[in-house]
Amino acid sequence: MKKLYVVGLGPGDEQNMTGRALAALEESEVIVGYTAYVDLIRARYPEKAFLATAMRGEVERCRMALEAACGGRTVAVVSSGDAGVYGMAGLVYELAQGYDPIDIEVVPGVTAACSGAALLGAPLIHDFAVISLSDLLTPWELIERRLDAAGRADFCICLYNPASRRRADYLRRACDILLRSRAPETVAGLVRNAGRAGESARVLTLGELREAQADMFTTVFIGNSQTKKLSGGMVTPRGYRDA
Amino acid sequence: MKKLYVVGLGPGDEQNMTGRALAALEESEVIVGYTAYVDLIRARYPEKAFLATAMRGEVERCRMALEAACGGRTVAVVSSGDAGVYGMAGLVYELAQGYDPIDIEVVPGVTAACSGAALLGAPLIHDFAVISLSDLLTPWELIERRLDAAGRADFCICLYNPASRRRADYLRRACDILLRSRAPETVAGLVRNAGRAGESARVLTLGELREAQADMFTTVFIGNSQTKKLSGGMVTPRGYRDA
Ligand SMILES: C[S@@+](CC[C@H](N)C(=O)[O-])C[C@H]1O[C@@H](n2cnc3c(N)ncnc32)[C@H](O)[C@@H]1O
Ligand SMILES: C[S@@+](CC[C@H](N)C(=O)[O-])C[C@H]1O[C@@H](n2cnc3c(N)ncnc32)[C@H](O)[C@@H]1O
Repeated sequence: MKKLYVVGLGPGDEQNMTGRALAALEESEVIVGYTAYVDLIRARYPEKAFLATAMRGEVERCRMALEAACGGRTVAVVSSGDAGVYGMAGLVYELAQGYDPIDIEVVPGVTAACSGAALLGAPLIHDFAVISLSDLLTPWELIERRLDAAGRADFCICLYNPASRRRADYLRRACDILLRSRAPETVAGLVRNAGRAGESARVLTLGELREAQADMFTTVFIGNSQTKKLSGGMVTPRGYRDA
Repeated sequence: MKKLYVVGLGPGDEQNMTGRALAALEESEVIVGYTAYVDLIRARYPEKAFLATAMRGEVERCRMALEAACGGRTVAVVSSGDAGVYGMAGLVYELAQGYDPIDIEVVPGVTAACSGAALLGAPLIHDFAVISLSDLLTPWELIERRLDAAGRADFCICLYNPASRRRADYLRRACDILLRSRAPETVAGLVRNAGRAGESARVLTLGELREAQADMFTTVFIGNSQTKKLSGGMVTPRGYRDA
């Protein structure tokens, strides 16, 4: 059967990729992805065909990949982080319904929640909720409801897509919702460009996070009621009782 | 300064480890972990010292690692998956407070949510909550509150530690809570031993999940209201609107 890999590249540098992801790229004749990610790996594989589209070109990208696979070539669609977390894996499955049967293999990667957490210490050790602040495909009211529910149930929270030029104040709005149930002293963290040039991590409070700047290269962490600042890091205990 | 790595090994086989995790093990003189994980890598590094303890020996394991690091040796503490998700990273930070200053570096890995999701298709593409059903350190009432909150806010849900001999009926109890807000037809998934011998994945419904068996090697997935069964896989759309 025709073969299509959907590969999570991890946060950025090759060191954070798995051996399986590297092997899938190696085996593929065609690599398809968002321009910025494809550029990260293009130099490594001069002999391969690369198909890149700009941001928001996800549907077009998937169709190019599915067509190349149906044409008999081994194809890898690449996502940053893990392809199954706000990545390309879902769309590939959905659009594949319109093509010949294709063997789709999702190759998991290190998602930004995990690569970012590692830079901060251990913010997500206990139960956590992952929420995207992008309202492109999700009504903002539902995002608000999720923020509120996660806040009240004392989840650690990890926010993807915290801001864009069009959504400059979304992080502040999210903090305001969390501040209904969480103290302003709650420990929070910001990670920008994990595993890439310009990597930075900062521990702050939820109150300070409300005033902070974030962009589309940032992942945001909000601790639960037990999260502490320890030796400059952000650390959530394993539970609520001593073992 | 003394150096201590906390390394996420990924789900199991070496192919799912990152280059950075392999390099950290290579650099370490002492490798510390739970017996079952240490046994997976012992053969690869015949020249290294291994310190292993049984399950629940986490505090002892951390102390052994911190003492070895303070004694001047480069040490790696290993966790399965990602060390920051129900792993050793937090405890290492907490207990390190009682020792000489140590440079702690958390090396992220592929967590079971991501390795399991990849085997099922793309169940966690949209906002999701990660909840452990272990009530060893967390009151069951709080676990129930989180399940209920995540269910009502239409999060995709990923359950770690769904069962143990002592907690044979916890998965059923969790399903009963989710069934308050989710239809029994909601798509669900079970993944056992991702990336290890005996790997299996199964797509079912929430109603069937209530009757299913899980053990400590299983991760459980419950879709949101939009999650579909597609070509045998479990796939959550990217949002609630067409792009
Ligand atoms: C469309 S999502 C893709 C997520 C990706 N599939 C993953 O699993 O990490 C893009 C968002 O992921 C987060 N992100 C991805 N890579 C990152 C990195 N290297 N450092 C910090 N955040 C990152 C940011 O929140 C960004 O806005
Ligand atoms: C103490 S937690 C450790 C989680 C680990 N740190 C991670 O990030 O994957 C143990 C639970 O993780 C899940 N798990 C870990 N490895 C798994 C695998 N290879 N396949 C399926 N589930 C796994 C199971 O739910 C198990 O009960």
